Amino acid sequence: SRRAMGRAMGLAGVLVGLFLVPAVLVSTSLRHGAPRAEPAPEPAERELASGAVPEDSLWPLPQWLRTSRRQLQLAPARFQLVHGAGSSAGPACGLLQDAFRRYYEYMFGQSRRRRGRRPLGARADPELSQLQVVIESRDPGCHSYPHLASNEAYHLTVTEPVAVLKANEVWGALRGLETFSQLVHEDDYGSFLVNESEIDDFPRFAHRGILLDTSRHYLPLKSILTNLDAMAFNKFNVLHWHIVDDQSFPYQSIYFPELSDKGAYSYNHIYTPTDIRLVIEYARLRGIRVIPEFDTPGHTQSWGKGQKGLLTPCYSGEQPTGSFGPVNPILNTTYNFMTKFFKEISSVFPDAYIHLGGDEVNFDCWKSNPEVKEFMKKQGFGIDYAKLESYYIQKILNIVSSYDKGYMVWQEVFDNKAQLKPETVVQVWMENNYAHELSSVTGAGFTAILAAPWYLDYISYGQDWKKYYSVEPLNFPGSEKQKKLLIGGEACLWGEFVDATNLTPRLWPRASAVGERLWSSWNVTNLQDAYKRLTNHRCRML
Amino acid sequence: SRRAMGRAMGLAGVLVGLFLVPAVLVSTSLRHGAPRAEPAPEPAERELASGAVPEDSLWPLPQWLRTSRRQLQLAPARFQLVHGAGSSAGPACGLLQDAFRRYYEYMFGQSRRRRGRRPLGARADPELSQLQVVIESRDPGCHSYPHLASNEAYHLTVTEPVAVLKANEVWGALRGLETFSQLVHEDDYGSFLVNESEIDDFPRFAHRGILLDTSRHYLPLKSILTNLDAMAFNKFNVLHWHIVDDQSFPYQSIYFPELSDKGAYSYNHIYTPTDIRLVIEYARLRGIRVIPEFDTPGHTQSWGKGQKGLLTPCYSGEQPTGSFGPVNPILNTTYNFMTKFFKEISSVFPDAYIHLGGDEVNFDCWKSNPEVKEFMKKQGFGIDYAKLESYYIQKILNIVSSYDKGYMVWQEVFDNKAQLKPETVVQVWMENNYAHELSSVTGAGFTAILAAPWYLDYISYGQDWKKYYSVEPLNFPGSEKQKKLLIGGEACLWGEFVDATNLTPRLWPRASAVGERLWSSWNVTNLQDAYKRLTNHRCRML
Repeated sequence: SRRAMGRAMGLAGVLVGLFLVPAVLVSTSLRHGAPRAEPAPEPAERELASGAVPEDSLWPLPQWLRTSRRQLQLAPARFQLVHGAGSSAGPACGLLQDAFRRYYEYMFGQSRRRRGRRPLGARADPELSQLQVVIESRDPGCHSYPHLASNEAYHLTVTEPVAVLKANEVWGALRGLETFSQLVHEDDYGSFLVNESEIDDFPRFAHRGILLDTSRHYLPLKSILTNLDAMAFNKFNVLHWHIVDDQSFPYQSIYFPELSDKGAYSYNHIYTPTDIRLVIEYARLRGIRVIPEFDTPGHTQSWGKGQKGLLTPCYSGEQPTGSFGPVNPILNTTYNFMTKFFKEISSVFPDAYIHLGGDEVNFDCWKSNPEVKEFMKKQGFGIDYAKLESYYIQKILNIVSSYDKGYMVWQEVFDNKAQLKPETVVQVWMENNYAHELSSVTGAGFTAILAAPWYLDYISYGQDWKKYYSVEPLNFPGSEKQKKLLIGGEACLWGEFVDATNLTPRLWPRASAVGERLWSSWNVTNLQDAYKRLTNHRCRML
Repeated sequence: SRRAMGRAMGLAGVLVGLFLVPAVLVSTSLRHGAPRAEPAPEPAERELASGAVPEDSLWPLPQWLRTSRRQLQLAPARFQLVHGAGSSAGPACGLLQDAFRRYYEYMFGQSRRRRGRRPLGARADPELSQLQVVIESRDPGCHSYPHLASNEAYHLTVTEPVAVLKANEVWGALRGLETFSQLVHEDDYGSFLVNESEIDDFPRFAHRGILLDTSRHYLPLKSILTNLDAMAFNKFNVLHWHIVDDQSFPYQSIYFPELSDKGAYSYNHIYTPTDIRLVIEYARLRGIRVIPEFDTPGHTQSWGKGQKGLLTPCYSGEQPTGSFGPVNPILNTTYNFMTKFFKEISSVFPDAYIHLGGDEVNFDCWKSNPEVKEFMKKQGFGIDYAKLESYYIQKILNIVSSYDKGYMVWQEVFDNKAQLKPETVVQVWMENNYAHELSSVTGAGFTAILAAPWYLDYISYGQDWKKYYSVEPLNFPGSEKQKKLLIGGEACLWGEFVDATNLTPRLWPRASAVGERLWSSWNVTNLQDAYKRLTNHRCRML
């Protein structure tokens, strides 16, 4: 016997049926909350037995779409993804070539063909022979990295005999290919079908991230790559890689190999330069930025193992205890190290931003250290250790700026009044009254991203995706100008209880809820409709 | 930035390092809570560099053990698992032959050999050449099924040149093989080592179960078999297979194939007779009983699809609503069906017990149905529908008894005062005041098993294994005789949010906590010690 509650099938981690029961794809009518120019589908040429409504499986829901009941058939042996006439991209565009191959595989690779033969004459749909992809900007961006200002908009029309996907840059084409692949479905007899449709789509927010933590538990490369695939399925575009922390230092540094030699869990729990390049390229091919986080001055216990003298020695009275605290902010050697270290990081990671952390600094050790106390006096900081923290952070910010990099920081750095460059991205993570913090950060003219309501490592029984889905990021006090400064959000999966054995089912499809919130229109909020689409989306992801 | 809490590595679902860092196996001293005749190990012949303490990785902890620091080496090319002199079992004992092969593979199959050569002369341990298994009972039980009274005790001595495992029946030998395999470890240079040891072991409780639910989500056969492996690693001995429920009917019946044809999620979300036999045999080879649950009269919506007339039609006023309630208890056809159905179940499943459910019956539909109301009047039940429920259950109990089967039931059947056979097992599941319920059930002379504190589908953030571990099942008011009637417990993983994608990491190693509670001595309660052993145990399971 079980419980009085929760008899219904649910989504938190698991949906109905591991393998899609074909009938689940079928539905009769729906009205999404999304704005649609023509909510009523055109009269179908003939009533289809299946009655499939293609948008029942779209996730995240496009900004504007119109679909018809008229279905076209795709023949895997003939259907082609091609560069359209007038596109600035061609066969030399490796990024699109790779995407064509990948999406062909997604659409036709795993036939769910059922036993049973098609009734005679039941299926004689007109054929869709091509998807033509047209990049309109002079520079398609095939060989560049996605960035905060990348254009991810696309326009898709599916009509007999060819579908056309137009985008200004390849980044929009990638999003459109994902959408097109979601429109294609297989019927019970193994036919691939797509409804005639028109879609106009673009993201609501520019920064749509997933935070993975590879310090609390090491994540094998394969887990990270699988997660990048899942991110692309959900139109996420930032991997916030919380790569090191107190517990371990898996990043293999070129200048300072001792950091991982001593600080990683073991000699093979590391990310080599080759691994890092592989992650960055795999992400780039999916339109995903990789922003590494090297969090200091707190959360650095593992740094201390391979870099003697970097951390502050803690004292008990007159005696060093043998323990160490945050990075030692009073030594020139610290800044010499950081200068060299971040020079490497700035060149290894191509993104315009580095996340510098700056959160949760515990002052106890600094307070215990006589030399630190002496330094405080000399600097006139009194006993305000937040000033010492800002002193340190300021120097790090300046170092990183000197390499032409922007930075992201956790909210404390803003709260403690460090002088930030205007384009700094402040990440709001504290659950308590985060709307107020968003007001303050954007009120001060800084760019913000929201993580507070989306800490997905916190688990609970039942369909918690609804909670994540129902967050309205712009629901904070502020002017229109302030609202524009909130550029996105991140779903964070901290690693205390996550490793390769549970990463995927713990993160997906729960993070999909955040994905739609950050991509789709603000008024796409209907939970029943989302449930239906998310169910189908999960099946497709599986 | 993350959170002020929970910085420590944790166990709930995930432990430190997916791959075992060798140093983790090393520890210097420990004192388990378990009774040990000689807590101080004998002086080692020489101090070993590793200082490994073999019991640091045993799970569940044996009832009595003595280990030495003297290590023996096992050479995979020479080491043999064999039938010892005087054993009543020999090469014709397929169960043991299969176990020998399996445990050989567990011990030597996946070498974690490290790069690096052994320092010259560093390793010259005496060799252990055999594990001799001796079954002492005249009937070893090779071809029988495990049952409630099976003897799982064993005695293991590991000394040069051979180890000896003695058990009365094969069931004890299986448990001892698991323990022996846990003693064997591989050092950094690829040598397999075991410390000289003596272990005397037996389970504290006879019924140690895992409940899997294959109705809310279908579980592929592979998931069930993997779970049986994990159960054997943790010395569980009952798979409580909650095979059907409202949501789906995956059991393919021989007499009534329509039940799964209509009631399963799809034509391939079923368990065929071959599948069922495979599960039962796979379990038998691991000393695990398979107790199927066919829960009636509630939780039967899926039965109604393939067996017209079985469920009670619900009414609104004078009119049937088209919905159906619990099994219709007033019709002869119901009992004719159940007689035939349970005849099949009794023969398909060899275990002496069938779980008949009997929980959470909603009376609303019965109350709405005019024929049921008429029947209540005729029987003199007044408006006490619990009497109608007991009337139904009583008939089902009698049917099943007539096939010489015992039954398990959920606690409501006892609470509602059905007449139960003395050997009935009552499963206590309601969280609220379960100690009181245990008192009542055992006070009435019935056998009980405890599930209430071990609903592992309820998840929460952090190391909830400690909560499961800290339950003391006998902590209820009652006489010694009553305490003896509590024969065990079950960890239950209901399937609303569980399928093949998350079953294993959600259940293990959290269920291991329940495994040790049900096997080891009552005074094995030290959480720090358990954490260390469980960490190593999880690595081994991975």
